[in-house]
Amino acid sequence: MAAFSFNKLVIFGVGLIGGSLARALRERAGLAGRVVGVGRSAASVQRAIELGVIDEAAALDNDTALSNALKDADIVLLAAPVAQTEPLLARLAPFLDARTIVTDAGSTKSDVVAAAKRALGARVAQFVPGHPIAGRESSGVDAALPELYVDRNVVLCPLPENAADDVERVASMWRATGACVRQMSEAQHDRVFASVSHLPHVLSFALVDQILDTPDAELKFSFAAGGFRDFTRIAASSPEMWRDICLANRTALLAELDDYTAVLARFRAAIDASDGAALEAAFARSRVARKEWQERGGIKPSNDVAAK
Amino acid sequence: MAAFSFNKLVIFGVGLIGGSLARALRERAGLAGRVVGVGRSAASVQRAIELGVIDEAAALDNDTALSNALKDADIVLLAAPVAQTEPLLARLAPFLDARTIVTDAGSTKSDVVAAAKRALGARVAQFVPGHPIAGRESSGVDAALPELYVDRNVVLCPLPENAADDVERVASMWRATGACVRQMSEAQHDRVFASVSHLPHVLSFALVDQILDTPDAELKFSFAAGGFRDFTRIAASSPEMWRDICLANRTALLAELDDYTAVLARFRAAIDASDGAALEAAFARSRVARKEWQERGGIKPSNDVAAK
Repeated sequence: MAAFSFNKLVIFGVGLIGGSLARALRERAGLAGRVVGVGRSAASVQRAIELGVIDEAAALDNDTALSNALKDADIVLLAAPVAQTEPLLARLAPFLDARTIVTDAGSTKSDVVAAAKRALGARVAQFVPGHPIAGRESSGVDAALPELYVDRNVVLCPLPENAADDVERVASMWRATGACVRQMSEAQHDRVFASVSHLPHVLSFALVDQILDTPDAELKFSFAAGGFRDFTRIAASSPEMWRDICLANRTALLAELDDYTAVLARFRAAIDASDGAALEAAFARSRVARKEWQERGGIKPSNDVAAK
Repeated sequence: MAAFSFNKLVIFGVGLIGGSLARALRERAGLAGRVVGVGRSAASVQRAIELGVIDEAAALDNDTALSNALKDADIVLLAAPVAQTEPLLARLAPFLDARTIVTDAGSTKSDVVAAAKRALGARVAQFVPGHPIAGRESSGVDAALPELYVDRNVVLCPLPENAADDVERVASMWRATGACVRQMSEAQHDRVFASVSHLPHVLSFALVDQILDTPDAELKFSFAAGGFRDFTRIAASSPEMWRDICLANRTALLAELDDYTAVLARFRAAIDASDGAALEAAFARSRVARKEWQERGGIKPSNDVAAK
C-alpha cells in the first residue's frame, strides 16, 4: 500500500467536511501539495484562506479561474450539499483533466452515481463515490478539525467503470486522515444509512411534529425529560440537509419506513392485547443488542471491506 | 403554606425513589421523624438500614411487623413497581390508620387510581396519587441521593375524594425535597407521559428490533453513529419496567401511537411525492420547537399548577 501524496487537491465547498480533509492532509499527514478551494464566489472561500486551510480560492462562475483551478489536479473532492452534485459535475466536466480523480462526500450514493453518469457520461470512470462518516454539531470551515476523521469510517462505493488504482488512491487519501476505509455497493450503502441514520432523523422530527399538533403541546414539553432529550436531539438538525437526504435516498428510506411501520404495528398489537410476554421479549432483545453495540464502542473500528 | 414535618414515614420499596425521598427529608430538609422501610422480607431492606437511609425495616409478609410499621404512620409512600400497587394496597389496607395518608410514585396514574379504588374502596380518600419525575441510570438504594428531587417536577393527581389538607401535606413533603409540585388529572398525566416518555421508548425499542430482523444487521450496527446512539439510548432501558408501563398506560399509549403513525404516514407521502417543501417546513418547525425546548433548559422549572 503506497503512502499517499498529491501535488494539487481541489475542494468544491470548503466547510466542515472539505476543510477537515485539507487540515488533516496538511497538519496530520504533513503533506505539502497545493489545496485549492472552489466556492460560489472567491469571497465565499476567503475565510478558508485566512485560516490557512487552503492555499488559493477560485469562483465557480468564472471559467478562467475554474479552468486554472482544475488544471493538473490530482484529486477533486465534492463537499457541497448532495443536491448540488449534478450541477457541480456538469460545471467542472469541460475543465477536467483526463488524469484527475473526482470523489465526493455525499450522504447518499445511488442518486450521486446516477447524477455522475448523467453529468460525466463515459468519463464517470473518473468518479469514485465516497462518504466520510463524520460530523460535528457545528458546521463551516471554522469548525474544521485535522483529527475529524481519525478512527471514523469512510465508505467508498466503487463503480465497475473505476480503475482499481484510482479507487486505491482515494482510499489512501482518506487513510492518511486517520480514517478506516470500507467498501460496499451504493445500494447497500443507501440501505444501511437509511436504516441507522436517515430513518431515525425522520422519526425524531415526527415525534416533535406530533406534539406540536396537540392542544397541550406546551404542557407536554414542560414535562419532557431525559428520554425525550436524547430521542429528539437529532430533530434539531438542519431542515434543508435532511430534506435533501430524504429525497436523495427516497427509495431506500421508504423501504425502511415501511418496515419500521410494520414493527410498530406488531408492537401496537402486543400492547392492545396486553401481551406482556411479547413486549418484554422484544424490549429485552433490543436492549441486549443496544448494550452490545455500546460496549463495542458504539462504532466498531475496522478496516474490513464489506461484501460489495 | 406550613413547613412539612412528620413523626413516621413508611416506605414500601426502598430503592432509588423511596431511598432518595428518605435521604432528602433527613439530610436536605433536616427532619427528624422515623422512617420505616417495608420490603418483601426484612433482609431486602437491610441495606437501607446499613446506609442510614431508614431507621427500621419490616417484612411485608409478617402481619405483626406490618401492623407495627403502619401504626401511627403520617404518610405511606408506595415506591415499588407500578404493577404491585393493587396487591400492596390490599395488603396494607387492614392495618391502615384512618389518619394516615398514602401516596405513590408510579409512572402511570389512571391504572393506579383504578387499583386504589379496588383495593381501598371508600378509603381511597386516603390515597393521593403522585409521580416524581426523577431518575438515574442506576437503581437501588445505593443509588439514592438527597438531592435527586431538587428542581424536578413531582406531579400529583388528586382525587375528588381527597381532603385538600391531605393533598397539601403530600405536596409539602415533596417541596421539602426541593421539588416543584404540579397538579393535573390522572388522564392528563397519562396523555402527557405517553407522549413525551412512553411513546419514545417504544419507538426506540422498535428501531433496534427492526434492524435485528434484517440480514445485514451487523453491517448496519457497525455504521451506526451519533444519531443512532442518541435515538436508541433509551432502548437500553429495563424491559420489565417498560413492559409494565406499556400495559399500565395502554389506552393513552395506543392513542399516541396511532397519532404518531398518522404523522409518519404524512411524512411518507411527502417523501414519496418528493415534496421537498413540505418536508423542509415540517422539519424546520420541529427544529425550532426542539431548540426552544433546549434553550428553556430542557425541563422548565415551574410551580405552575396546570389545569386539572
